[in-house]
Amino acid sequence: MNNQLIERVAAGDVTAVARAISKVEEGGPGASDLMKQIFRRTGRALIVGITGAPGAGKSSLVDKLAACYRKRGERVGIVAVDPSSPFSGGAILGDRIRMQTLSLDKGVFIRSMATRGQLGGLARATVDAVAILDAAGYEKILVETVGVGQDEIEIAKTADVCVVVLVPGMGDDVQTMKAGIMEIGDVLVINKADRDGVLRTEKELEGLLSLAVRTDPWRPPIVKTVAIENRGIEELAEAIDRARESQQSAPASNERRQAIARWRILELLRERLLSEALHSDSTSEKLDRLAADVANKKRDPYSAVEELITK
Amino acid sequence: MNNQLIERVAAGDVTAVARAISKVEEGGPGASDLMKQIFRRTGRALIVGITGAPGAGKSSLVDKLAACYRKRGERVGIVAVDPSSPFSGGAILGDRIRMQTLSLDKGVFIRSMATRGQLGGLARATVDAVAILDAAGYEKILVETVGVGQDEIEIAKTADVCVVVLVPGMGDDVQTMKAGIMEIGDVLVINKADRDGVLRTEKELEGLLSLAVRTDPWRPPIVKTVAIENRGIEELAEAIDRARESQQSAPASNERRQAIARWRILELLRERLLSEALHSDSTSEKLDRLAADVANKKRDPYSAVEELITK
Repeated sequence: MNNQLIERVAAGDVTAVARAISKVEEGGPGASDLMKQIFRRTGRALIVGITGAPGAGKSSLVDKLAACYRKRGERVGIVAVDPSSPFSGGAILGDRIRMQTLSLDKGVFIRSMATRGQLGGLARATVDAVAILDAAGYEKILVETVGVGQDEIEIAKTADVCVVVLVPGMGDDVQTMKAGIMEIGDVLVINKADRDGVLRTEKELEGLLSLAVRTDPWRPPIVKTVAIENRGIEELAEAIDRARESQQSAPASNERRQAIARWRILELLRERLLSEALHSDSTSEKLDRLAADVANKKRDPYSAVEELITK
Repeated sequence: MNNQLIERVAAGDVTAVARAISKVEEGGPGASDLMKQIFRRTGRALIVGITGAPGAGKSSLVDKLAACYRKRGERVGIVAVDPSSPFSGGAILGDRIRMQTLSLDKGVFIRSMATRGQLGGLARATVDAVAILDAAGYEKILVETVGVGQDEIEIAKTADVCVVVLVPGMGDDVQTMKAGIMEIGDVLVINKADRDGVLRTEKELEGLLSLAVRTDPWRPPIVKTVAIENRGIEELAEAIDRARESQQSAPASNERRQAIARWRILELLRERLLSEALHSDSTSEKLDRLAADVANKKRDPYSAVEELITK
């Protein structure tokens, strides 16, 4: 069953891709078998992470960038991570619904990752979904995450090229976030660049860039865009290509891949261990009982966990 | 050693509190022993979560609210969760540094939680730090998190009363985030309420509130503040008190505490299992080797995890 599915994924069958992603969202042995075979078929796509604060216009930028790649004749996968936050909320999905043009294009696959069970695993499922799209032959895969939150940042880091989206008028904030931006951003975008304050934001970013120490020779360019008017998108695509070329010739690239691999193993290990610890019905009942005891202060969470582990 | 430390924590010794929090940040058996004893001494404090998008002015609001509680003669603990994001970045710590007045006040304890090791555990360490402050007799504990990101939302949910901070002009965004806000917000704040658009934001929130279905009879009030000018802070403190009173008389409260307990147990279990799986030096070497293999596509992450588990 998995073998057939994998063949169909590899042939670029959209229904099979959707089903495979649902499987990795569910997790469990089915996901494991599938991914072992998917993994060896990956490595051809360029994975672009698009991250930024809520309201920075990431979704519009992703859509326009996807359209730009389509014009080049490339197939594009889009994975939007929506952690059901009150501040990103349904926004990502909402934007996706508005995005009529792209969704009718068979060369574009769009998936919103939102579910998170008690085992966690959203970050793991997201990188797995990206791998499936890679195996299915999508040349460009855009991963959109809101750039706040631990897991969200980790997901952004797994991309080949990470684009950080800012907007003018973040003024004072920019100064306080230099370390983070410099750590993850391979390309910096000032979106909504028709607004006041774009020059100031640009100057601030340039100042930060001149101070930054990177482990590779790449110096992140600043690209100005007005996504909803499709302005600056070609320049962004070019900047992403150049970032990728620079990486491929630089020695830091391997270190980066190794750090990503390590993170993936740990995420998976975490989920797997928890799944095994909770797998039986009796554990689930026990967990309910322990939670009630902790809630009523009859027991502390630490000794509750010890009871779960040493059963 | 732990016994002495716990006695000193219970006596409100600031140095002991700081050391105890460092212990839970480190994790491991020391943290476990400590927390088992701390836990039974908790339950007196009112824990207030303050969450909102980057730039909403959470830190100023927290500072002014703390000052307001101080005037009432209460001791205040502040735990700021800083996930080292490019968009919250050093902002929380930066604000803390600016906050000279409070940091000279011995009735205020301020701690920024930022470290996250390979075992995860930032969320777990944060709720443990809150428990320590509770055991140390702080009457009010303010937990500040950026309201985006899975772990950050979970942390906000563990508070007794959760305050969601918005700013005017989020306009269109508000409509897309209703579910999330209604889920976690016990009190809604429109900060920077001297800006344009405050009426519109208020109307939108009222519209959402009239549609919301909550499991308890509490109807979240909307409080308008200008934190940097200390306006609306008394009203906020009163709204928090009323939310707390409503909870204590409503049956949903127990359900909520049980959900929090369950989450705490699972977070701890996750960390504990991973720690046990990685505890030996040989595992750490193995992990490095497996990460290198995965990075070089000699192996997939799923079978790497199986090798780690079945050793």
